Amino acid sequence: MPILNAVTPDLKLAASLFDALADATRRGRGIVRDSYGAGEQAAHDIVGSAARRIGLEVAPDALGNLIMTLPGRDRQVPRILIGSHLDSVPQGGNYDGAAGVVAGLCALETLRRARIIPDCDIAVVAIRAEESAWFDVSYIGSAGAFGLLDPDCLSIRRSDSGITLEEALRTQGFDVTAIRERRRLLDPARIRAYLELHIEQGPTLVGRGLPAAVVTGIRGCKRFRNARCLGRYGHSGAVERPYRHDAVAATVALLHHLETIWLRELDASADLVVTSGELYTDAAFHGPSKIAGETRFVLDVRSLAQATMDAVAQEARSAAAAIGRTYRVEFDLGSTSDSPPAVMDARLRAALLRYLAQPFEMASGAGHDAAVFAKMGIPSAMIFVRNDNGSHNPEEAMSLEDFAVGLEALIGLLLEFPL
Amino acid sequence: MPILNAVTPDLKLAASLFDALADATRRGRGIVRDSYGAGEQAAHDIVGSAARRIGLEVAPDALGNLIMTLPGRDRQVPRILIGSHLDSVPQGGNYDGAAGVVAGLCALETLRRARIIPDCDIAVVAIRAEESAWFDVSYIGSAGAFGLLDPDCLSIRRSDSGITLEEALRTQGFDVTAIRERRRLLDPARIRAYLELHIEQGPTLVGRGLPAAVVTGIRGCKRFRNARCLGRYGHSGAVERPYRHDAVAATVALLHHLETIWLRELDASADLVVTSGELYTDAAFHGPSKIAGETRFVLDVRSLAQATMDAVAQEARSAAAAIGRTYRVEFDLGSTSDSPPAVMDARLRAALLRYLAQPFEMASGAGHDAAVFAKMGIPSAMIFVRNDNGSHNPEEAMSLEDFAVGLEALIGLLLEFPL
Repeated sequence: MPILNAVTPDLKLAASLFDALADATRRGRGIVRDSYGAGEQAAHDIVGSAARRIGLEVAPDALGNLIMTLPGRDRQVPRILIGSHLDSVPQGGNYDGAAGVVAGLCALETLRRARIIPDCDIAVVAIRAEESAWFDVSYIGSAGAFGLLDPDCLSIRRSDSGITLEEALRTQGFDVTAIRERRRLLDPARIRAYLELHIEQGPTLVGRGLPAAVVTGIRGCKRFRNARCLGRYGHSGAVERPYRHDAVAATVALLHHLETIWLRELDASADLVVTSGELYTDAAFHGPSKIAGETRFVLDVRSLAQATMDAVAQEARSAAAAIGRTYRVEFDLGSTSDSPPAVMDARLRAALLRYLAQPFEMASGAGHDAAVFAKMGIPSAMIFVRNDNGSHNPEEAMSLEDFAVGLEALIGLLLEFPL
Repeated sequence: MPILNAVTPDLKLAASLFDALADATRRGRGIVRDSYGAGEQAAHDIVGSAARRIGLEVAPDALGNLIMTLPGRDRQVPRILIGSHLDSVPQGGNYDGAAGVVAGLCALETLRRARIIPDCDIAVVAIRAEESAWFDVSYIGSAGAFGLLDPDCLSIRRSDSGITLEEALRTQGFDVTAIRERRRLLDPARIRAYLELHIEQGPTLVGRGLPAAVVTGIRGCKRFRNARCLGRYGHSGAVERPYRHDAVAATVALLHHLETIWLRELDASADLVVTSGELYTDAAFHGPSKIAGETRFVLDVRSLAQATMDAVAQEARSAAAAIGRTYRVEFDLGSTSDSPPAVMDARLRAALLRYLAQPFEMASGAGHDAAVFAKMGIPSAMIFVRNDNGSHNPEEAMSLEDFAVGLEALIGLLLEFPL
């Protein structure tokens, strides 16, 4: 492990960048950095200027992802990317995404100030349009850079203004043919590693009193988006238990069963979260003195292990069939929408972990650009920084001290390359 | 037990009355006998004419309840009332309510044809406005006849036309001062017994293959109408189980617990039904990838025993507190709306039961005018007749054969008086 004392990061740079980003993009209480809009562009302008001041090579790609490169000794060998996104959800916070870009700049500024020339190029990538809040598709910048986007997405309309993604890209001066032709702007074979620092979006680090964590992987998601239970409406007083077709009772039985499965999997040290965040009887037909004839619900199953999600989904289907028979109702769970888990690189994880005074690893439940890079076979790693109040809201709260813990792990890892 | 062969009821009279009622009040597929409206009045006219043809004394009371009396030997002693209502819900069926009035007329016609003069007056009462579908208050006719109605109900508006109950009563020529002054039109001390035949509104008799049953009592209802669970919204992937405040998971746990209580009570032969017929997350805030921060639900607890309902409600409150702690959410079950159970008279029940070839007793889950008479301390009894497809819909299905089984029990009981 190199001696870090020699290369102390400049937290004033981080503070000034966070302040500049907030000043430029705060609208009322929250942050508005609209994907391929004025807010995101303002953030790119701030970050690009800072990169030039640091002395990095700055160039956007065809989709507006901003590549800010510290040249290495050998410019022909695969490079290291440090990335995250600069867009935010409407009325979001200042740190979701931006913290990773700022960390990358601070890391490269630290190397430059210490006159360290890395073996290979190291570039910070300010990625476009990670959030799906504006255009209903995730990872436009990173997936687009690998030619992974369905060209049909160009006609998706922005949730507020209604302009299409194509119009937004053209207005900003970017090249829609990159998406239309599924062009690869980044060559996976030319990327040695992808590293991303991000605020934790859940409460685990706050709960455990830890400043930062290494991410084991990004959970996949298997979601029954349109599950239904069909029973029969009846009088709540006049229909005895053996004659009921109670959709609520059956749905409660199913969700309770899935909770026992969840607890069993946690006991077996599996990674798993199970959520039903939407559940409702039909307001047009339900009533206080009626047995419910129908429920609709969402079942969201996430894990680092595809096999765990598959097993839970299978158990959900067989439990629904059995409970349906018992309660004389019919479950229609529908099809699942699936996103696979993204496992972070074991060697990078182990290396990062050594830079944490209180080493801790945890899964990422939310999606990140790192999932796209990992999917392309690029060794990827993530650092989570403690953040109170969750993300996607104006109350995101990350301290510079905690940020520094993550940043120092990132710098430490950079100094170890080639691993 | 008297020999019934001598006094066989005239099912042609029943058939012609049911046909006349359906012909006069069918609107499209369903029956519309609107409380204190043209449909109910048409039914009263048909029934009143039939009563006059039979030779009964016919007189409405101040609230339009139609009293059709077969004079007894001693007109000074307390009389027997056979009653039910003639109104229907919008697009209801032909039998809910009307079957009891038709049964009363058929019973008295049978006695007259057999030249039997009862010891006391026996009157059929065609009761007004039992359904709360038109004016949002139940038992207007029967409760009004005992001076039990809150005079404020006069300002309740009809659910479709918007006219007030007071306007409806005046238009029909009835006397609103009876309600305003809480006047007693019926003296409980002058009623020996109240008897009501009604279609079963649940599926029990169809399920058991029985034509009729004697009713043990009318279940009371203890209802948490506005129960809520308050948790905290969060990311379904990013918030680990120990940090969740999941309102759906907690509500599922509570409802599951109440189901186990229900099963325990049934095992102990208690009378109980437990229903949550409305349950929903907030469509303005929920989402497929969110942990739900709130649920709203109804909890409807019914039993023949007040103590059972009280115990279940108490268990619901303590379980909600405990589950709230476990799941880090807060339940607010709110207050209950309560209607007490009405126990049918044991002597009358036993007498009726002897007239059923397949003796069977069951609770009534739905409310009936008999509950009002029982509440006034009048010995009351009910006969349920098998009915397919539930009630309050055009598909009510009662056969004349089953009706005859209930009617013969009613006549048998009348011939036993004084018990």
